[in-house]
Amino acid sequence: MPTNRQVLLDNRPKGEATASNFKLVTSETPALQDGQVLVRHHYLSLDPYMRGRMNEGKSYAQPQPLGQVMQGGTVGEVVESRNPKFAVGDKVQGMGGWQEYSVVDGNQAGMLRKLDTTHVPISQYLGAVGMPGVTAWYGLVKIIEPKEGQTIVVSAASGAVGSAVGVLAKQRGARAIGVAGGPDKCKYVTDELGFDACIDYRQHKDARSLAQALKEACPNGIDGYFENVGGLVLDAVMLQANAFSRIAMCGMIAGYNGEPIPMAYPQLILTNRMRVEGFIVSEHMEVWPEALKELGTLVATGKLRPRETVAQGLDAAPEAFLGLLKGRNFGKQLVKLA
Amino acid sequence: MPTNRQVLLDNRPKGEATASNFKLVTSETPALQDGQVLVRHHYLSLDPYMRGRMNEGKSYAQPQPLGQVMQGGTVGEVVESRNPKFAVGDKVQGMGGWQEYSVVDGNQAGMLRKLDTTHVPISQYLGAVGMPGVTAWYGLVKIIEPKEGQTIVVSAASGAVGSAVGVLAKQRGARAIGVAGGPDKCKYVTDELGFDACIDYRQHKDARSLAQALKEACPNGIDGYFENVGGLVLDAVMLQANAFSRIAMCGMIAGYNGEPIPMAYPQLILTNRMRVEGFIVSEHMEVWPEALKELGTLVATGKLRPRETVAQGLDAAPEAFLGLLKGRNFGKQLVKLA
Repeated sequence: MPTNRQVLLDNRPKGEATASNFKLVTSETPALQDGQVLVRHHYLSLDPYMRGRMNEGKSYAQPQPLGQVMQGGTVGEVVESRNPKFAVGDKVQGMGGWQEYSVVDGNQAGMLRKLDTTHVPISQYLGAVGMPGVTAWYGLVKIIEPKEGQTIVVSAASGAVGSAVGVLAKQRGARAIGVAGGPDKCKYVTDELGFDACIDYRQHKDARSLAQALKEACPNGIDGYFENVGGLVLDAVMLQANAFSRIAMCGMIAGYNGEPIPMAYPQLILTNRMRVEGFIVSEHMEVWPEALKELGTLVATGKLRPRETVAQGLDAAPEAFLGLLKGRNFGKQLVKLA
Repeated sequence: MPTNRQVLLDNRPKGEATASNFKLVTSETPALQDGQVLVRHHYLSLDPYMRGRMNEGKSYAQPQPLGQVMQGGTVGEVVESRNPKFAVGDKVQGMGGWQEYSVVDGNQAGMLRKLDTTHVPISQYLGAVGMPGVTAWYGLVKIIEPKEGQTIVVSAASGAVGSAVGVLAKQRGARAIGVAGGPDKCKYVTDELGFDACIDYRQHKDARSLAQALKEACPNGIDGYFENVGGLVLDAVMLQANAFSRIAMCGMIAGYNGEPIPMAYPQLILTNRMRVEGFIVSEHMEVWPEALKELGTLVATGKLRPRETVAQGLDAAPEAFLGLLKGRNFGKQLVKLA
């Protein structure tokens, strides 16, 4: 059996996460039992939700256990199988974690999904045609429910989730306005993803200033907002929100370090009769087939061309993850493992 | 025609509203035109929403115009009629405003509604069997959607809206927990309205302390919250909110003076997958018949026994209104005009 390298959560962050929270170890992969499959990971997905799980205490998911392999989505290839449902060479997706190999019970439902990589590159199953894409789809389609001609704003617009939100909104005849950090990301959001406009939040020190920029980009106000960030952007969007507008709360990177990120103007929820709704895509498995079908078609036909930032090798995972939390990635953050 | 006394909005509040914002004037009621009705008001309703309309600027309703009679709900009696649909002596409800008489076009739909006062005292049509009652009904039934055994919290629980929320929640097999100001109001909420518990927010200086009291009163967490206040209570409730809990945003007295009232922990909307929704009952006229039927039955059978605080005479209206904004009333605030 091959030697496996793994990244463990060694200790929990106090405030900001640092590289010293992680530990790289080497272990032998155990011999397979009946029904098990050995998967060699090609890509590991790094996602903001992982930061939340590094904390102790109440959140939507169980905390990541200390001393164990960091959890995370992976795509890869079956390299050994004692399960008739999986053959060596099958491309598969699972929650393999921050490691080079995983041993998976192929009989347990939902643990391993076979992938068709004819038209869709395997890494996209961790992005636009995977959890981030379905996250975009659920928040937009089921919570924001955009109507033709309405204006939809999404933060972290160049990211894996944000890029899909905008393209899906455009498909429904809505205007898509992005918020992103820096001119390069904004240019990508408008020129390559086809958003109607993108605002560089780094040009604005406070919510009022950002709200003014949003007003110019959204002359008819904002009907829906897909929230990936929290804080300043949320406040600014609420100042331009229309009556009966909807906010899908998907991520609040701004708050992962435990610092307070108050919502400045909650009374606008009342005066504008808004609906603000949090969700976690893994609790809505019923939409995955429909969502993946639309997302797969958009990627295969080139209508959704998501960017990827790819770190090389497992050693690079912790720094890549910390960079993701600071917005240093451009598009979907992956780690190439093979 | 009788002499009419009226309260006008003389100038807009700068910060807190004061008596000097209002002006009492006397005028002659004009002679009736064909189709018009002269109504003598028995009661004027004072409601928190009026404070919002005293401000200029964007809100859910047009601002109250300066120099004109303050708008408000009234019940009274037809004393003169040039409309075959209304006879002298009919009891009616309308938006007569802060004045002793109003002249109403009886042909315009929705302007004047005839009341049956056989089983329900006329003043209740401004409270439990009127706009405040339907507000409670809509927010509870349509937004919070309580299930049997769930825990529902309501702020301003002794008030016209809050009292109905609790009684309606109990009717649906839910636990009802009130938040109110002072021991007398809390005693009324539990002993006379039948809530399971009531917390005196004045005993708590911060959200953490109030959250601890809520935790003791709600050992299974909070599934629904009916928000009448904003600020501290909202923060405390959110700290005890369950997964998939719902907040109906109905009023935010705390913010009417324009001071900031941030929501301290918006990230809980995400981690608890909450739904937070603002509403205005006048935009949901379709529920009024069903709601009024249930509320009328609850009042007529003594299951909902709302308190009233009655100020005497139009002169007393401004001070009574300012007291309402400070929570000095006990139950529905009315002004007796005849």
